[in-house]
Amino acid sequence: MTDDSAPKQDRSRATRRRLLETTIRCLARHGWEVSTVAFIAAEAGISRGAVQHHFRTREALILAALEHMFEERAALLDALPDPGGADPDRVHAVVTGLVDAIGGELFRAALQVWTVAAADPELRSAVVPLERHFARGVHRRAVRLLRVDDTDPAVRGLIQATLDLARGLALADVLTDDSRRRARVVRAWSDQLAAALAASVPD
Amino acid sequence: MTDDSAPKQDRSRATRRRLLETTIRCLARHGWEVSTVAFIAAEAGISRGAVQHHFRTREALILAALEHMFEERAALLDALPDPGGADPDRVHAVVTGLVDAIGGELFRAALQVWTVAAADPELRSAVVPLERHFARGVHRRAVRLLRVDDTDPAVRGLIQATLDLARGLALADVLTDDSRRRARVVRAWSDQLAAALAASVPD
Repeated sequence: MTDDSAPKQDRSRATRRRLLETTIRCLARHGWEVSTVAFIAAEAGISRGAVQHHFRTREALILAALEHMFEERAALLDALPDPGGADPDRVHAVVTGLVDAIGGELFRAALQVWTVAAADPELRSAVVPLERHFARGVHRRAVRLLRVDDTDPAVRGLIQATLDLARGLALADVLTDDSRRRARVVRAWSDQLAAALAASVPD
Repeated sequence: MTDDSAPKQDRSRATRRRLLETTIRCLARHGWEVSTVAFIAAEAGISRGAVQHHFRTREALILAALEHMFEERAALLDALPDPGGADPDRVHAVVTGLVDAIGGELFRAALQVWTVAAADPELRSAVVPLERHFARGVHRRAVRLLRVDDTDPAVRGLIQATLDLARGLALADVLTDDSRRRARVVRAWSDQLAAALAASVPD
């Protein structure tokens, strides 16, 4: 590179990424109350002043972190290899990918934010558009990965049900490790979804 | 009644019920932080001392409130009229009943508790058995209402998926009114579930 400022910009981007990832981890592991700017800064090894230079408030930092992680999850779905093979196996692979994209640490962090937002109209008005944007992006990717036509209301309902199921499964994993039960439920659901989609889509 | 203490006991029971219902409402509407013993007592019109006579800590009060409401929801499921009629309509009525039993104000209150419990091992160890007991009770009632045999692993997976879906739908209703979309998703899934159960159960 010929631009002298490029390494500095790279460092700044890397720092920002570390800060946002640390924010998600702090929320998921320690909860909303503990996850102050001072706590997150210390965990990320960044000075509190440097954090506040980029994000004026805790809410701004947390919303940026959610947005960053939503983008990462969408990119993961875009990078899913085409599972190929017979239809029930393809559907199972896609449902597993969707469940992974919606659950885990990002879900635990988002849950902390939703719960506070449930009783805080200002935070809620900032979170709802972000959440809706992510949900639409995941829906669009589900339609593409499953190769279905969601202008059919029955198909659209089943895709939405699959994403609601994924959120329910993510919630069931918050207090205990639910991975074994979840694998069975995903299998039962994806078998059923494969049969329904095969019946609804003319060859 | 001939027992002189009966009216006093009735009053005490009614007060306890009011206190527990107020606790759920406070959690659902105002969140965990705001829902202190003092706040809940004031909302219920009961002295703080009287509340603390029955429940030594906020956690004890909140857990008792969740348990009480779980029992009420289970009783609601037990009181569901037999929907009768053709199978898809029966399944739709049962799924709607399950979604109602799992969602709403009780879910919003429980969400506040789960979210704090996610980062608080002591609270978590008290909440998990309570939650598991409720989940098993709802599962058992779902099997009875749908008249299916859940020793069949495929059927069991579909019942569990239905309850996970209900939790996902309840979560989607926390930040915005999701009732119209939810009705469509419930219809799409219950049609599918009816077809699956009809195929799995020999007449």
